[in-house]
Amino acid sequence: MPVRALWWDRGSLALLDQRELPARTVVRRLRTVDAVAEAIRTMVVRGAPAIGVAAAYGMALAAQRPGADPERAAATLRATRPTAVDLFVGIEGVRKAWSRGGDPLEAAHRYRERVVEECHRIGLAGAPLLRRAHGVLTHCNAGALATVEWGTALAPIRVARERGADLFVFVDETRPLLQGARLTAWELARERIPHAVIADNAAGHFLRSGEVDAVIVGADRIARNGDFANKIGTYEKAVVAHENGVPFYVAAPWTTFDIRRADGRSIPVEERGSDEVLEVAGRRVAPRASRARNPAFDVTPARYVSAFVTPDGVVRPRDLASRIARRTADR
Amino acid sequence: MPVRALWWDRGSLALLDQRELPARTVVRRLRTVDAVAEAIRTMVVRGAPAIGVAAAYGMALAAQRPGADPERAAATLRATRPTAVDLFVGIEGVRKAWSRGGDPLEAAHRYRERVVEECHRIGLAGAPLLRRAHGVLTHCNAGALATVEWGTALAPIRVARERGADLFVFVDETRPLLQGARLTAWELARERIPHAVIADNAAGHFLRSGEVDAVIVGADRIARNGDFANKIGTYEKAVVAHENGVPFYVAAPWTTFDIRRADGRSIPVEERGSDEVLEVAGRRVAPRASRARNPAFDVTPARYVSAFVTPDGVVRPRDLASRIARRTADR
Repeated sequence: MPVRALWWDRGSLALLDQRELPARTVVRRLRTVDAVAEAIRTMVVRGAPAIGVAAAYGMALAAQRPGADPERAAATLRATRPTAVDLFVGIEGVRKAWSRGGDPLEAAHRYRERVVEECHRIGLAGAPLLRRAHGVLTHCNAGALATVEWGTALAPIRVARERGADLFVFVDETRPLLQGARLTAWELARERIPHAVIADNAAGHFLRSGEVDAVIVGADRIARNGDFANKIGTYEKAVVAHENGVPFYVAAPWTTFDIRRADGRSIPVEERGSDEVLEVAGRRVAPRASRARNPAFDVTPARYVSAFVTPDGVVRPRDLASRIARRTADR
Repeated sequence: MPVRALWWDRGSLALLDQRELPARTVVRRLRTVDAVAEAIRTMVVRGAPAIGVAAAYGMALAAQRPGADPERAAATLRATRPTAVDLFVGIEGVRKAWSRGGDPLEAAHRYRERVVEECHRIGLAGAPLLRRAHGVLTHCNAGALATVEWGTALAPIRVARERGADLFVFVDETRPLLQGARLTAWELARERIPHAVIADNAAGHFLRSGEVDAVIVGADRIARNGDFANKIGTYEKAVVAHENGVPFYVAAPWTTFDIRRADGRSIPVEERGSDEVLEVAGRRVAPRASRARNPAFDVTPARYVSAFVTPDGVVRPRDLASRIARRTADR
């Protein structure tokens, strides 16, 4: 059975609690916009496309209350996390429909369908890039859990495997919250895709040794020039891949492209609480007197990206602006 | 009181158990060469210079037994860990003295004194490099715990601080065994040196943002051309520092230079057990079906090194071979 991060269940939003995986499979059923906002803030659900869909359903839940206000619901959801642009796109789609007298739930369903369908097309578009790869490195979780179904970075891996590619996935554990070791490994283990978890520190070693011959990651926000924000550590992997001539791919649905942003300089980077670093698996590891810095994302300049894998095919960074302009004109 | 990793205590080798820090200060007293070998293998003591000194005392402990054989004791200690060359240097110094009828304990004391004194001189030589630095990044623990006293990478930081430098240390937590978060932070906290622990993934972000303006690390083995092995992740930091024009320094006593090795290609890299990655703080984080790869070290090419900080001053990589040759001629 394919992994699903969330689904609509008779008047409530059902979410796999991603903080509990892989040890426990816990489903949370949310009935209010405030509960959805809290789930996004505390990372019950995470991953740019998935939080966009969760927020869309959060709007739909708000609309079920008599006298609810679309602007207020949207403001509540927007205040949860700053970096992933999908969040704002998901909120906005439902807000517009609702304000115009449309059905907010219908708009949320349509948004979810769009994300799932775009991720599937990312898989079809990206699989040929991995045809000759053997060792593929990925960072964080850009799988079904991050996107509802298929994933972004994991979609081409899934499709390539279905087509018989002999892939081995190196999974960065992705400190501080270990989305690689906990979530990506869980998805790959369920589908029996061969993989090894590595300390984030080891990625460079395997890039240099030649055991990794392609890198594919997701994104939280992509500017028009191809600079992009993604989970902290992505920038290091991109620089080291570039240094070793290993192709570096960024897979994302169109909801992740921020057409109003010219480059990566002004992308807001969330700094989260220091306990995520000072504690590991709930146990304090650093001395009591020590503090931490904890940026949750970094911004990677476009020059380190070999190509973007979009629902409409593989796009080189230099062609990105014109492709985005064309898509916008089509809308 | 300065930190000391180990000391001789009336016929036994006393070690701070570094696996227990910072939560507990536990001293282990070892009386046999086998116990010392086990302590090195299980990382009760770690850090290239410190395991060299521990091994030297392991030889001295072996020699206390009637009929003990220097070759056999040396073989036991050599089989513990493959990467740090100091281990072999520490063993060899005592083995030679013992074989020639000298006092093994006296030879071990001399070896320890040499390491402590060289580390102090590293501090004096390296402090001027940090005079204009504000944010200094370090990886793993290259402090007193790794070297008996002073440290290698931390020695210049300590001396620069004594001289009034306004330094802030970014401490890579250093997965999988968290020597940065546990040990380096502990040393810095004891001496009230301002610092923040960061996820290893965040180093690139701070190198790019300009908050880190110097990097200093230790080493486990340095080849004649300046290629060097150090804790896994060092290579990534070196590449990203280079990419951002941030100076990258490697601090080491002469015992870490492997004059018989022309370059880094043949340095043996230890792969340790996968549980170090799959478990964090004793708790399984990855799915049961997942495996891990766990290289404990990586090799960084000399071209990423701005300078080596040696007991005899700062040496550029291109001058290293001649400096090593001169030292060898002096012996």
